[in-house]
Amino acid sequence: MESLKFAKRVECLAPTSIRKMMGIARRLLQEGKTVYELNIGQPDIPCISVFPETVFSKAKEGHIVYSPYQGETYLRETFARYLNNHFDQRGVGHLVIEKENVVVTVGASQALTNTFLAIIDPGDEVLCIEPFFPPYAGFLAIAGGVLKAIPTHAEEGFVLPAEDEIERMITPRTRAILLNSPCNPSGRIFTKEEVTRLARIAVNHELYIVGDEVYREMILGDREPFSLIQVDLEPELMEKYKNSLIVIDSASKSFSLCGARIGFVVAKAPVIEKIGMVVAHTVASVSDLMQYGVASAYERILTDSEFVQNLRRIYRERLDAVMEAIEDFLPGVVAPRPEGAFYIMIQFPDLEDVNDYALFLLERFNLGGETVATTPAASFYLTPGRGRNEIRLALVAPPDKMRRSIYIMSEALKAFKVYLCLQRKASLR
Amino acid sequence: MESLKFAKRVECLAPTSIRKMMGIARRLLQEGKTVYELNIGQPDIPCISVFPETVFSKAKEGHIVYSPYQGETYLRETFARYLNNHFDQRGVGHLVIEKENVVVTVGASQALTNTFLAIIDPGDEVLCIEPFFPPYAGFLAIAGGVLKAIPTHAEEGFVLPAEDEIERMITPRTRAILLNSPCNPSGRIFTKEEVTRLARIAVNHELYIVGDEVYREMILGDREPFSLIQVDLEPELMEKYKNSLIVIDSASKSFSLCGARIGFVVAKAPVIEKIGMVVAHTVASVSDLMQYGVASAYERILTDSEFVQNLRRIYRERLDAVMEAIEDFLPGVVAPRPEGAFYIMIQFPDLEDVNDYALFLLERFNLGGETVATTPAASFYLTPGRGRNEIRLALVAPPDKMRRSIYIMSEALKAFKVYLCLQRKASLR
Repeated sequence: MESLKFAKRVECLAPTSIRKMMGIARRLLQEGKTVYELNIGQPDIPCISVFPETVFSKAKEGHIVYSPYQGETYLRETFARYLNNHFDQRGVGHLVIEKENVVVTVGASQALTNTFLAIIDPGDEVLCIEPFFPPYAGFLAIAGGVLKAIPTHAEEGFVLPAEDEIERMITPRTRAILLNSPCNPSGRIFTKEEVTRLARIAVNHELYIVGDEVYREMILGDREPFSLIQVDLEPELMEKYKNSLIVIDSASKSFSLCGARIGFVVAKAPVIEKIGMVVAHTVASVSDLMQYGVASAYERILTDSEFVQNLRRIYRERLDAVMEAIEDFLPGVVAPRPEGAFYIMIQFPDLEDVNDYALFLLERFNLGGETVATTPAASFYLTPGRGRNEIRLALVAPPDKMRRSIYIMSEALKAFKVYLCLQRKASLR
Repeated sequence: MESLKFAKRVECLAPTSIRKMMGIARRLLQEGKTVYELNIGQPDIPCISVFPETVFSKAKEGHIVYSPYQGETYLRETFARYLNNHFDQRGVGHLVIEKENVVVTVGASQALTNTFLAIIDPGDEVLCIEPFFPPYAGFLAIAGGVLKAIPTHAEEGFVLPAEDEIERMITPRTRAILLNSPCNPSGRIFTKEEVTRLARIAVNHELYIVGDEVYREMILGDREPFSLIQVDLEPELMEKYKNSLIVIDSASKSFSLCGARIGFVVAKAPVIEKIGMVVAHTVASVSDLMQYGVASAYERILTDSEFVQNLRRIYRERLDAVMEAIEDFLPGVVAPRPEGAFYIMIQFPDLEDVNDYALFLLERFNLGGETVATTPAASFYLTPGRGRNEIRLALVAPPDKMRRSIYIMSEALKAFKVYLCLQRKASLR
């Protein structure tokens, strides 16, 4: 029996490679295999302790009610205070954020989709630095928009192309530039000069500039990210810049609270009001309980940054273990040390299609019953052929498990090469 | 300084009259006035007690993580069991719902917007019974769709028009019929014959039929609603019917859990899979904690329906008080007794524009410092001029407060008529 037709915008929507690998990994786990699930940015670290306490004390009052569509005033205030404080503590200049500039969303995902719904007409284009978080393309497709890649390369340390090169990608349909720094998957923290370059291009071409800054607190080295909120252009450009600026944030990674589903959009009126209207007409409002819990987390780190400091230490130790293990067990790969977020991209120069290797590793291979779920990186690229020999790992296991995973990957790589040879021979017969 | 342009779809989005009245009411409350907020369907009854218990025991484990985009398997299973059980207990025939037919959303709002994003192209039309819940128009506008009204009338007890009358409203752009039963705002429970009439029209014209059944458990009289899940057409039509069927539900009203933001879409593959893909690409996933809490609520009423029975008793008592108070204090109005949901529509035949009265009542009038926030009903209608002399009240205060509210409204009505006279005289001078 035939089903009725669907809307055009959903024709191309498909589960991302991250979700596909998750499906296989979960099945194998149920079958009793040990799988190190390094394929999804799901922090394994317990959440900030004030969150469950606040949620319970609020929940037991028994009144679980609709919030204002912009979000709970207390959370919007606290988040604005957190942002201003974040920059003030570092002694860097920044735009001052007020609660009126903040709208609460269901994670950064809804923050992005609702931003696109507010600013993108069908056929409009958004420029995005490649490699990028794969769901961006789907988030944009919901609004009928099309993602266009600004390529960066592992071999060059993922630096941004020159201004004129980026400007050549702008068409009459380009409406926005999307910048993710620290970047998932590359781990790159774009420099002040690079961020300012994009901001200037946005202003000169009357584009929105959307900053996905969800990894703000996840710094793996010495360099702090330069936020779009810190950009300082010539005075005659600043009003235009403020009107073009949209910053996305989330409590998911900073506090290990992915399941709270609390994100933020920061922008100036009337942009923030339009995005608020989209929130009102998509989810009506966000869970009041989760907002109170998350507000208490931001409140806490205003005076006590221990949780975030600890998080940084934990992820750095894991990264150190990974870098060492790569040197020990995977000498042939290209893997620039990431500066932020909690992923690492590994390029296998002698593999044609890493997808086969990743599936072989997960489904056919095991070392004492153990294996590793990874994310083949082709979906992080738009440019055809790019990312075919790269995988992304998330730093979501303790150092010894991360080292063990790299070892398993190296043994699987040897086995995979033998397997490929045998297959070729078989096909020659 | 001019801002950049917005997407066309958001041009017409504006706060609903419900939200506007809420804004004024909150301001007056802060100024120390007592306001009976009967303008929003925010239940004042404490939530089901198992919810906070479950949320806390889950939260204190400290792992607040991403759910599968379709929702937690446990909640999808429990909700499917609840639905089947709901009909089995009543001894009525129904389609059997499996967990694969269920996707979890951020309330019924996201369930509806994501359904529209999955099935509606820009310019497509959805037929909807008028009066209707005003955000429907905005939910549909997000997908570029246009709402068209099937009018029903208070004076006729809100019965559905004849089959051919409804069929005349179908155009080549019509994609779906949206049915809300029990209906917000009219309180009408559409009969088996009416629901089947719409189902048959949908099948014959290859339309989706979307049932918003969030008030399933809120029954104010003796008659139970007839769900789209119960529709039984001729065998040769049933496959087509199953492919066209989409049912929306929510935990918000049944368990007094509006702030949990948990809703559901129920449909057959491939429709449910497409809607799941939209969830994955709009909010990524729904709060795991809120899903566990809500699952425990459905689990509870499978074996112990006390909470829902109590809810029905409470709302019936309130409605009785309102009906009596209307008879005592507002003899001139038309107010059919609602059969379900928890609203009442009141028509003032001698008022030209109830909006002025509602604002007068809220802002200029008080009785011992007390006043009432209501919702003028024009926004519940698409047909020009309709609803101008109607207001909607929500049964969200105890019986004595409901009675008091009607009394305040009747006193305000007298004062308003004097105020109108004085204004007219002033303008004649």
